[in-house]
Amino acid sequence: MYRPEIKVLDCSIRDGGLINKWQFSDEFVRATYRAASEAGVDYMEIGYKASKDQFDSKEFGKWRFCEDSDVRKIIEGIESSTKLACMVDIGRVEEKDILPKNESPFDMIRVACYTKDVDKAIDLCNMIMDKGYETTVNIMAVSTNLEREIDEALNDLSKTKVPTVYVVDSYGAMYCEDVTFLIKKYKEALPKKTIGIHTHNNRQLAFGNTIQAIIDGANMLDASVYGIGRGPGNCCLELLLSFLQNPKYKLRPILGLIQEHYLPLREKIEWGYIIPYMITGALNEHPRIAIAYRDSVEKDNFVKFFDTLTTPEPESLIKKG
Amino acid sequence: MYRPEIKVLDCSIRDGGLINKWQFSDEFVRATYRAASEAGVDYMEIGYKASKDQFDSKEFGKWRFCEDSDVRKIIEGIESSTKLACMVDIGRVEEKDILPKNESPFDMIRVACYTKDVDKAIDLCNMIMDKGYETTVNIMAVSTNLEREIDEALNDLSKTKVPTVYVVDSYGAMYCEDVTFLIKKYKEALPKKTIGIHTHNNRQLAFGNTIQAIIDGANMLDASVYGIGRGPGNCCLELLLSFLQNPKYKLRPILGLIQEHYLPLREKIEWGYIIPYMITGALNEHPRIAIAYRDSVEKDNFVKFFDTLTTPEPESLIKKG
Repeated sequence: MYRPEIKVLDCSIRDGGLINKWQFSDEFVRATYRAASEAGVDYMEIGYKASKDQFDSKEFGKWRFCEDSDVRKIIEGIESSTKLACMVDIGRVEEKDILPKNESPFDMIRVACYTKDVDKAIDLCNMIMDKGYETTVNIMAVSTNLEREIDEALNDLSKTKVPTVYVVDSYGAMYCEDVTFLIKKYKEALPKKTIGIHTHNNRQLAFGNTIQAIIDGANMLDASVYGIGRGPGNCCLELLLSFLQNPKYKLRPILGLIQEHYLPLREKIEWGYIIPYMITGALNEHPRIAIAYRDSVEKDNFVKFFDTLTTPEPESLIKKG
Repeated sequence: MYRPEIKVLDCSIRDGGLINKWQFSDEFVRATYRAASEAGVDYMEIGYKASKDQFDSKEFGKWRFCEDSDVRKIIEGIESSTKLACMVDIGRVEEKDILPKNESPFDMIRVACYTKDVDKAIDLCNMIMDKGYETTVNIMAVSTNLEREIDEALNDLSKTKVPTVYVVDSYGAMYCEDVTFLIKKYKEALPKKTIGIHTHNNRQLAFGNTIQAIIDGANMLDASVYGIGRGPGNCCLELLLSFLQNPKYKLRPILGLIQEHYLPLREKIEWGYIIPYMITGALNEHPRIAIAYRDSVEKDNFVKFFDTLTTPEPESLIKKG
């Protein structure tokens, strides 16, 4: 679909880093940036910005922190009109970590939050916008909220200058009808803002639900290369680019990136259509229990996993391998 | 969604057999039949019925032929209300191969055809119905037809007693909007018939498009265990059962079947989300060229595959490994 307002954001390194604690090589991140640039991707989210006081930099790779100097090494010498984004968590970043935009390689800093924390997110966004950046609020896990809670969060956001608000299917639990319901609700509450969509692929619906969101009017679209992301992963960037008709988007560089970098990585770390994540998606549950199960000796005992999540008083689920 | 008219047909052995020439062990097929029965699946399609004159029974497994005596060995001793189905190809089955229904373990014999062969399919269906069986016509590859051709085929079918006609996304090329367009067209042309949906998963849209078809009114739904099927495979039965609300459907037996039988098989033979099939889906092409490419030494050179299919005068594509 060719609608000039549509923007694509690649979140491969940020969301993929949730699998491997952001331990990507510079070569891998540079290859992703180069391919995203050649493919005409509008934004690349390269990680989380967080204080080094809060996370051990021996345990976590550099894309947990997104220091400007590390980012500059990645983009150096690569011609690009792709803007750089990072994400911040509420309470995990300090104002001193965020320089004014004209001193930073970043164009956009995104804030993810639950409905209950929307006011904190707005505070953070105001600071981010004051420093000159674009921003978004990504309201997570709305599939578990009462409609009243969502309405309250949207009402709060409607009074702000935050330009973009995301529908996020954190648990990969939504059907196309849920997407339509939420996008309509967000558009009505936030008529002057851009609506974004971020899906998870627990039930192989990430791409289909993203298409549904586009039909319903979402103009900011998250995707990741080969679907990389925690657990089942995200909407595949290559699928999204094959759907969008805007001639600025090119599929070919992403195919090259997959064969050279993402296919080999997929041999080493796991994401995609994996039954325990399908089950948590179907049950509208956080994937954390499936992530732990996949790290146990019984990782392929799907029946036991299903029984545990659907039985009132389960035995202890996870035996460590 | 709970709509009592909805029926689910498992095509694991029939469509999966296209990968391994129907060389499944009896144990594997029995396990599939047992689980489908326990899961409340309405129909299980166990293979193709074909004349042994036309295929070498040394090369092809028994589910290429579906002899009644072989079928009886599979179902013996398993309590079930799942009906058995098989598929026939035009010109590959003879009347003598099909006994009257009261002498056969089968309830349904389905006919797949292209639009140009619909009249031959109707002839075959008449013979099948005269022998007492349920039947369906599965019109393949309609994503490559002019609307005029589809209309003509539907007009021919409207004059028959064939009770069920399928929308088939043979190339995995359809979006939800295409599904809606076709289901509406089929329903208008065939107001008294059941409309079926059979999807392929080239672009991870098989389940999403099946949901769309249900919303639009399709009541006969094909799926396969863990998506098994040629190339990218089909809509996953476990996903479909997790969506349907009718309490007669049970997810748990299919999860057990996957962990015991389909996961180990997937280690040996390939199906699922694989980039060359994504590319043929995006280009609305038959998967045969991707199947051949996956059997070549360059199977993971996705860029070359893409270039070959999108360049006017490609070099010879496939080097045999």
